[in-house]
Amino acid sequence: MTARNISRFWEWGRKIICVGRNYADHVKELKNALPTEPILFLKPPSAYVTEGSPILVPFYSSNLHHEVELGVVIGKGGTAISQSNAMDHVAGYALCLDMTARDIQEDCKSKGLPWTLAKAFNTSCPISEFIPKERIPDPGNVTLWLKVNDQLRQNGCTAQMIFSIPFLISYISKIITLEEGDLILTGTPKGVSAVQEHDELQAGIEDVITMNFKVNRKNQ
Amino acid sequence: MTARNISRFWEWGRKIICVGRNYADHVKELKNALPTEPILFLKPPSAYVTEGSPILVPFYSSNLHHEVELGVVIGKGGTAISQSNAMDHVAGYALCLDMTARDIQEDCKSKGLPWTLAKAFNTSCPISEFIPKERIPDPGNVTLWLKVNDQLRQNGCTAQMIFSIPFLISYISKIITLEEGDLILTGTPKGVSAVQEHDELQAGIEDVITMNFKVNRKNQ
Ligand SMILES: [Mg+2]
Ligand SMILES: [Mg+2]
Ligand SMILES: [Mg+2]
Repeated sequence: MTARNISRFWEWGRKIICVGRNYADHVKELKNALPTEPILFLKPPSAYVTEGSPILVPFYSSNLHHEVELGVVIGKGGTAISQSNAMDHVAGYALCLDMTARDIQEDCKSKGLPWTLAKAFNTSCPISEFIPKERIPDPGNVTLWLKVNDQLRQNGCTAQMIFSIPFLISYISKIITLEEGDLILTGTPKGVSAVQEHDELQAGIEDVITMNFKVNRKNQ
Repeated sequence: MTARNISRFWEWGRKIICVGRNYADHVKELKNALPTEPILFLKPPSAYVTEGSPILVPFYSSNLHHEVELGVVIGKGGTAISQSNAMDHVAGYALCLDMTARDIQEDCKSKGLPWTLAKAFNTSCPISEFIPKERIPDPGNVTLWLKVNDQLRQNGCTAQMIFSIPFLISYISKIITLEEGDLILTGTPKGVSAVQEHDELQAGIEDVITMNFKVNRKNQ
């Protein structure tokens, strides 16, 4: 196999681990309890979509929400990584959307079912280009924002995270071995809301990056 | 990239999609409702373990269950695959265990949380060697069995599945694009039970294959 290019991690990376309820203000807006340890769920790599391709509303949902999140791209794998070594395992970042079929998620929660249909469908993980680590010297203190049709919906700082990036890397890697090319979605600040067919989403990290996605409807 | 070898799908395949509650007798033993459509959840590829390496009880569980399942290995990817074409997308099979931290799963179900900690930990997906498609001419009518320390615990026929393999391939691929090297776990018959450190598991598919795994305890 030829060397894999970390700046195109979505083409070969094998997992996406997402953290739920990691910003207190978002926990409140969804009327959830504050977590005492990270809430983890998975998206498959088939969920990736990059700029130029649309986000598709799943045929079975009528309440698709945006969640803007800082993604952490793993450069060096490991198991039971210590918090103090955690940042050595980071190659860089990506701006990500954790697209969520909120109606389906509520149904899954009430029935005690897994969140797969709400979180893991095709195009449920829009991502920016790869951001090398040096471009975000302090990932624990950057502002993420998201606009829908030019209206600001989300604007939050990663300093508000309940569980820090080093804590998450350490916590996850004790349970699920991290590998090069894996992506960790670190949770969303408040302001999540529904998107519709033909909406245009723009998101950014301070002065580091912006990205744009259109929303289309998927027919079954 | 050099050609990928489907007979070592676990080294490069990018997703594991599991189906819950697909045998009526197992649905009953866990006191669940019969599903009206497939229940899907994910394991990451880091969950794979092959013969010669042990199954590790997660440090946070005291009730790890075996679930013996027929795994379907995808040879040709696709989206919205029809049931009539579904078997053309199958390269072969693997005998699989869906190792489940039942105590954690019950807790997740009662709290409406995702099943990740119960289902996606390291070594939660023990697999046999690859079984070429021709060796199981009728995957809808083979017997799976599992023994713990030589005692038979599970023994069920895939004819008892609520949703057939072609139905599952078609259903999943409308939501989550299937790719070469993906694995679908098709659910377990009744007889699931707890395993302990030092237990020896043996499982098989009729006269097609057997596999053996030891259980160890993982220290945090
Ligand atoms: Mg899940
Ligand atoms: Mg999220
Ligand atoms: Mg199972």
